[in-house]
Amino acid sequence: MGQGALDVVGVGNAIVDILAHVDEAFLVKHDLVKGTMKLIDADEAERMYMASPPAIEASGGSVANTMVGIASLGGASAYIGKVRDDQLGDVFAHDMRAIGVEFKGEHAAAGPPTARSLVFVTPDAQRTMSTYLGACADLGPDDIAADVITRAKITYLEGYLWDRPEGQAALRKAATLAREAGRKVAFSLSDPFCVERHRCEFRALVESEVDILFANEREIMSLYEVPHFDDALQRIQGQCEVAALTRSENGSVIVAGDRVHVIDASRPGEVVDTTGAGDLYAAGVLFGLSCGHDLATCARLGAIAAAEVISHFGARPEASLATLIRQELD
Amino acid sequence: MGQGALDVVGVGNAIVDILAHVDEAFLVKHDLVKGTMKLIDADEAERMYMASPPAIEASGGSVANTMVGIASLGGASAYIGKVRDDQLGDVFAHDMRAIGVEFKGEHAAAGPPTARSLVFVTPDAQRTMSTYLGACADLGPDDIAADVITRAKITYLEGYLWDRPEGQAALRKAATLAREAGRKVAFSLSDPFCVERHRCEFRALVESEVDILFANEREIMSLYEVPHFDDALQRIQGQCEVAALTRSENGSVIVAGDRVHVIDASRPGEVVDTTGAGDLYAAGVLFGLSCGHDLATCARLGAIAAAEVISHFGARPEASLATLIRQELD
Repeated sequence: MGQGALDVVGVGNAIVDILAHVDEAFLVKHDLVKGTMKLIDADEAERMYMASPPAIEASGGSVANTMVGIASLGGASAYIGKVRDDQLGDVFAHDMRAIGVEFKGEHAAAGPPTARSLVFVTPDAQRTMSTYLGACADLGPDDIAADVITRAKITYLEGYLWDRPEGQAALRKAATLAREAGRKVAFSLSDPFCVERHRCEFRALVESEVDILFANEREIMSLYEVPHFDDALQRIQGQCEVAALTRSENGSVIVAGDRVHVIDASRPGEVVDTTGAGDLYAAGVLFGLSCGHDLATCARLGAIAAAEVISHFGARPEASLATLIRQELD
Repeated sequence: MGQGALDVVGVGNAIVDILAHVDEAFLVKHDLVKGTMKLIDADEAERMYMASPPAIEASGGSVANTMVGIASLGGASAYIGKVRDDQLGDVFAHDMRAIGVEFKGEHAAAGPPTARSLVFVTPDAQRTMSTYLGACADLGPDDIAADVITRAKITYLEGYLWDRPEGQAALRKAATLAREAGRKVAFSLSDPFCVERHRCEFRALVESEVDILFANEREIMSLYEVPHFDDALQRIQGQCEVAALTRSENGSVIVAGDRVHVIDASRPGEVVDTTGAGDLYAAGVLFGLSCGHDLATCARLGAIAAAEVISHFGARPEASLATLIRQELD
């Protein structure tokens, strides 16, 4: 892939997932709240890893998963993230490039190792994450290359970046560059706990910097501190150009101006692991938007991509999404 | 109850339900399509009744169930329907009046007997109906008393009325009287097969006569012959003042002008029999509208009323709905 036009460039935490099946008791014992992500330090990462059952490693990171999804859908995507020049960093970069994502990450020669997230999958297919950010902690505004941002129709940023001051500066720089170039800014609220940590700032971001918002129902209800999904839906309407709200098996609601679309979930044969469902939904929607599809079609592409990724273990598609969406686009 | 103001008056088929538990094989054997209502004649009603397992009788009829729900919610409701001066007719009238519905039905001294519907409930809590209309077939424009219609804020009419020319004339007269008096007209599409029988007329009614529409997702998708719920949602928006669309366990979507509300279902402990779910949802929404509640609250009242009625056998509430909704309205 050369220096041509991009559909989407993503900026996020470059993380290798370490996936293990556990039972509910494991979550209780390690004080983990199901369905959320918590940040841990190097020591705790080591302790948790020792305690976890045999696992598999797979390149991950929410925005990185989305960029891989866009490539699998047939779109042109790039990714800005930070890994270390270690084995996991090589694996991460290889996996991105192998599927056709333009990887703009630097392999730091010093500092903490490549980030990893312990992803515990319970029998109900829910995932609970403990993340050691490692090399991600060094991602800052200097990593945001203006030429990459301006080549892309959409710049996609994740709420997790807000957990570090350098990440906040990187996010703001990317958003500003994109807006100044007349491009769109997309943003994911990432996680209900992430919303709790940064509620006030996220509300301001959504109002002033974000064109396309992604959130699941717990995140959007937390953003506005309301008891019902519909309350949040009424609040978000008009706040940004497009808001795509996911509701697990209840599908998604996509809002733009005074149009509201209510889209069913696509149902895979079996739900094996919900890791990556939101990431791949975002891939479908962003790919659809960059192709100029109508909003309902965008949401259905998201639903199809999400259904593929939850039908197997791991947060990246195993089938060609371009093939899976062909029928929808006919 | 005197001749005072009414929240809602309903016009519909006055039917006694005969409820029996059957297995899937019973439906297949008798050529019944699950989840639908079919009309049968007196002979077939007799044959089906003989073939059915032991049953219980309960006053029913879609609009009548809704009027009972409104009374249980604390509203003032009246009902116009036709029964015969037979035992089932007496039971029907007694049940309406006992809960406080002003029953305007005439007990015909001649003609076919009071209507009955054989309601077959399968183990998945779905209901399939075979209805013998009996005395209902005589309901016509002469039964629509102008003073009752004008006393009510809302006149609620059911699509089933359209199955007979006299019923069509009664429906049109009621709608005209209500509109001329500055009242609202509410209408239920009743059943996907009913929509198939009268699609063109129902579209025209929705456009020109109906202020408040009730439909489940199969009905509204059939009305517009579209493959996705969202397609129907986009079509109905702007067609009538309020459209309340039910989606079973996926809750409901209520549309008014450019506002769309997405409301969760209320979940009972156990789903025993879905008979009456749509009728009681309509009761909650109509009661809420007549009280001047906002649309999201109206839909939640509908969800609460529906959850009560599916938690037990039969299409009428067993608990006081006024008590159940107290928390929502606080």
